[in-house]
Amino acid sequence: MYKVKVYVTLRESILDPQGKAITGGLHKLGFGEVQDVRIGKYIEMTLDGCACNSTDGKIAPTACKNVEERVKQMCAKLLANEVMEDFRYEIEEII
Amino acid sequence: MYKVKVYVTLRESILDPQGKAITGGLHKLGFGEVQDVRIGKYIEMTLDGCACNSTDGKIAPTACKNVEERVKQMCAKLLANEVMEDFRYEIEEII
Repeated sequence: MYKVKVYVTLRESILDPQGKAITGGLHKLGFGEVQDVRIGKYIEMTLDGCACNSTDGKIAPTACKNVEERVKQMCAKLLANEVMEDFRYEIEEII
Repeated sequence: MYKVKVYVTLRESILDPQGKAITGGLHKLGFGEVQDVRIGKYIEMTLDGCACNSTDGKIAPTACKNVEERVKQMCAKLLANEVMEDFRYEIEEII
């Protein structure tokens, strides 16, 4: 079993209107020290390690060797829009 | 100047329909090893350290002593809904 944390953030060059709105809100609440806010997504996933080696997604009996590769594919295919977003991830083995 | 990273996650007891939808999507794409997905927010803020000691949000001339307290207040007041969300943060001093 693996616990994966994925962080998806807007690329530097992309405007972040949601972050701008939050900056304004924080200023109005008296937090004038806030200079910039950028909003991203934080995704926590639990993966069954044994399934990672199968290409059809079914449980394979061998231990997982390529979790990182699979997580990268998940990010590229569904979790992040690589045109305007960057992603990074942390993989941690759990019992 | 401080760089603050805030992670806002749904409490364990709260259902996460967005996460469920992503789990389904990943299964359909062939990632059958995904057991659970939970979605949270990731917020990156840049704070002007000098302003943290003022109560009215204006720039104060003294160096910041209570950034952590201020960040906690920001989370409680605007960034997270404490009824259903938890938050944690990392504060890093930058030049």
